[in-house]
Amino acid sequence: MNLNIKAFIRSLGVLMMVMGAAMILPLIVSAIYNEIDIVITFIYTIVPVSIIGFLIYYKVIPSQTHLTVRDGFLIVSVCWILAAIISALPFVLSGAIPNIFDAFFECSSGLTTTGATILTDIESLPKGILFWRAFTHWLGGMGILVFAVALLPSLGIGANILASAEAPGPTMDKITPKISDTAKNLYKIYAVITILEIILLMAAGMNLFDASTHTFGSVGTGGFSNYNNSIAHFNSVPIEMIITIFMILSGVNFNLYFYSIRKSGGIRNLLADEEFKLYIIIIVVITTLISLNLWFTQTYDNLGQSFRFSIFQTASILTTTGFATTNYDVWPTFSKMLIFTLMLIGACSSSTAGGVKVIRFLVVLKLIKRSIQVRLHPNAIISIKVNDKKLSIDTVSEIANFIFLHILVVAISTLLVSLDGFDILTNLSAVLTCIGNIGPGFNLVGPVMNFSIFSNPVKILLSLVMLAGRLELYTFIMLLMPKFWRQDR
Amino acid sequence: MNLNIKAFIRSLGVLMMVMGAAMILPLIVSAIYNEIDIVITFIYTIVPVSIIGFLIYYKVIPSQTHLTVRDGFLIVSVCWILAAIISALPFVLSGAIPNIFDAFFECSSGLTTTGATILTDIESLPKGILFWRAFTHWLGGMGILVFAVALLPSLGIGANILASAEAPGPTMDKITPKISDTAKNLYKIYAVITILEIILLMAAGMNLFDASTHTFGSVGTGGFSNYNNSIAHFNSVPIEMIITIFMILSGVNFNLYFYSIRKSGGIRNLLADEEFKLYIIIIVVITTLISLNLWFTQTYDNLGQSFRFSIFQTASILTTTGFATTNYDVWPTFSKMLIFTLMLIGACSSSTAGGVKVIRFLVVLKLIKRSIQVRLHPNAIISIKVNDKKLSIDTVSEIANFIFLHILVVAISTLLVSLDGFDILTNLSAVLTCIGNIGPGFNLVGPVMNFSIFSNPVKILLSLVMLAGRLELYTFIMLLMPKFWRQDR
Repeated sequence: MNLNIKAFIRSLGVLMMVMGAAMILPLIVSAIYNEIDIVITFIYTIVPVSIIGFLIYYKVIPSQTHLTVRDGFLIVSVCWILAAIISALPFVLSGAIPNIFDAFFECSSGLTTTGATILTDIESLPKGILFWRAFTHWLGGMGILVFAVALLPSLGIGANILASAEAPGPTMDKITPKISDTAKNLYKIYAVITILEIILLMAAGMNLFDASTHTFGSVGTGGFSNYNNSIAHFNSVPIEMIITIFMILSGVNFNLYFYSIRKSGGIRNLLADEEFKLYIIIIVVITTLISLNLWFTQTYDNLGQSFRFSIFQTASILTTTGFATTNYDVWPTFSKMLIFTLMLIGACSSSTAGGVKVIRFLVVLKLIKRSIQVRLHPNAIISIKVNDKKLSIDTVSEIANFIFLHILVVAISTLLVSLDGFDILTNLSAVLTCIGNIGPGFNLVGPVMNFSIFSNPVKILLSLVMLAGRLELYTFIMLLMPKFWRQDR
Repeated sequence: MNLNIKAFIRSLGVLMMVMGAAMILPLIVSAIYNEIDIVITFIYTIVPVSIIGFLIYYKVIPSQTHLTVRDGFLIVSVCWILAAIISALPFVLSGAIPNIFDAFFECSSGLTTTGATILTDIESLPKGILFWRAFTHWLGGMGILVFAVALLPSLGIGANILASAEAPGPTMDKITPKISDTAKNLYKIYAVITILEIILLMAAGMNLFDASTHTFGSVGTGGFSNYNNSIAHFNSVPIEMIITIFMILSGVNFNLYFYSIRKSGGIRNLLADEEFKLYIIIIVVITTLISLNLWFTQTYDNLGQSFRFSIFQTASILTTTGFATTNYDVWPTFSKMLIFTLMLIGACSSSTAGGVKVIRFLVVLKLIKRSIQVRLHPNAIISIKVNDKKLSIDTVSEIANFIFLHILVVAISTLLVSLDGFDILTNLSAVLTCIGNIGPGFNLVGPVMNFSIFSNPVKILLSLVMLAGRLELYTFIMLLMPKFWRQDR
């Protein structure tokens, strides 16, 4: 079975056109702020990228539009790497991030909505570049190829295969019969949430620029801020509240929003969802535990302050956003361990968030419960149900295997990262925060630190780990298998 | 379904008799070394424990010998806790460890063959006490109840159920039709290995006392040494080599030895076993990687020295023994990460070692491999085979669930331990080293540190984690379920 090479090349062309188009927005921002150099940088990027993209799209017509799963894995993986490379061009060309490895890391981090940075002084960068940096979160949040599918319904390539290779979470429902309609609907909801947050943040006192960049960071669950102190820069309870709410909203399965709007029952569709319920429970329980721990240990002046910092960081880490209002790395260990635990979970499937996802965590809890019951009553047959639907053995084993693969990738990556010589917790949390698309970790990669400490090879590795995590491992890791490349299979 | 209370009480009686008998050996050692106080201490423990045990055994005859799985869980869990309490008596009565929580920790650590200690100056303890401390490893290594079954074939209680609730590893074969024969055979092999190591260690220059204690520590994969510097005290390559070999031998599935002796094919039975092969591969690969890392980073003078320390620590941690010839906590991070990884694996099933076990790790690797193949060829049906035997879905899911439960217990325990306020790596490695019955961890519980830093509640928690780990979680954790105690189910 050969790869559909023409469809592969055509996809790269489509991607280049999309990326070229996406850069028009930061170009306008640069123009508004009179950053002539940056305007020129963006033109130098947009023109060749778009022209090459258009030529490919126009010239390379695949003889058959059918894609195999294998094609899907290849197209999606390479498109994401290419997207990170194209995104990095303005950084390198403008001199904002001269080192190409750093720029690739920063853009992988942006597109995968990780939010880990190699920058030590973010505020020194031009506005146009900072806008582009934040905008990569918005682009990557819902999926670049889903975006392409929404923009260009007739790509001439199998959109279903692409969407499923890119979609986050194990339950990518087809909410409408046509994948391009689904993509459009998801992007409509995404756009509405985005505009709403921008308006609210402006009402709370931000200017349009800051409101936009921080909205991209929260609805994409990314975490890039254009201030060195992240959200702590504003020191504003209303702003923190708005961002907290939108981070939590963006960590919800977007299909649920669609159902809540379209189906009878409205909001009750949301409340009936087991994953959503557990997601809310986790936020409430962890926020409470951290608040009490911070209060008892007198880390902050009073319970109110403790709650303020607790809920923001809980939402920020669980939704894999990574914004900071305080340095949680100096919290007492119990609170730090809870943050560490949140890093292992992540938000809901089919949201813009990364991580293992609440649904998988839920199934694992049910598996553990069942395994205990089975030992007490060896002849009992107990099936695993989610939302009253019985999960097939295949689905359950898919979830279990995903988690094992996740652990294996974390172990191997941490081992390789440790060749740079930093301490175990720095290395482990760097890998966890990258594979989970979170942003900050602990110790040398804590919330007030950055990833500039690592060597270039490790930066590339961590960039690939972010991409692998964003594409839910299999899509990306498949390409590392010799079997994948054997034509005769 | 009611619990078989009489059989439960009778089992406790049997256990008390066994523990009383076991203390005769350290009593003799105390007598030889003229430690009159300690002789009296042992007499004060042996006499009441044995008499009460005998009275119970003699008086409490269950009306039916049949045990349910539920009875098995209860009996085995309570027997192990009781064994730790009885073992602690000489420590407390002699004043060697005055704090009862410390003594309970030390004895749980001994019986579960963990080897974690709360002692800061081991060498100051009397010989009889040190002998008893090491001997608990030997007793716990193969299972105290398996020992009871071997000693008293007709306990009047269902030995099968007990053995399976206590047996380490998912593949407790019935190598002989009668469980008491199996137990006897396992103990014969165990005894031969023990005597062999004592002789070899004496040939290498140890006195009988040191040879015995360090043999109990290695064949039980425990790790208690009677020297503060552990095996580094001897600074002898032959001694290190002998202990390395016997740690590795004790980490092998004992059933394989039985087959190699009884069946045609001999040693080839061992080499054909996939778990054994992977076990050896792990030792060779990790030893090589650590040796090279230590050599390149000039941690030791030359490659020979690097290899010497590398192979000993690799074997010591993988087999969950925990003896030390050097402080691996000051090694470069890459080597430390490899040691950390070994802590997550453990040795072979049905050995004296703890941990997740190589067989489960093997099945997980096969599951990951299959899940990648299935994604490339969605219609392929690929079964998981070990030693050319297809594993049933139930077995595979049992293994997966065990690992999930393991992770959950580690997460919750680490969270609770963190209330003591130490750093994350100290807490996490303390829990991993206790649940895996290893011994030393990292940072404040590293190889040259000890567990005396923790508060009493955390010491109790860690003791229970050791016991839960030794009994492969389910047996112990079952008792924490409200459902377990409902009579009507």
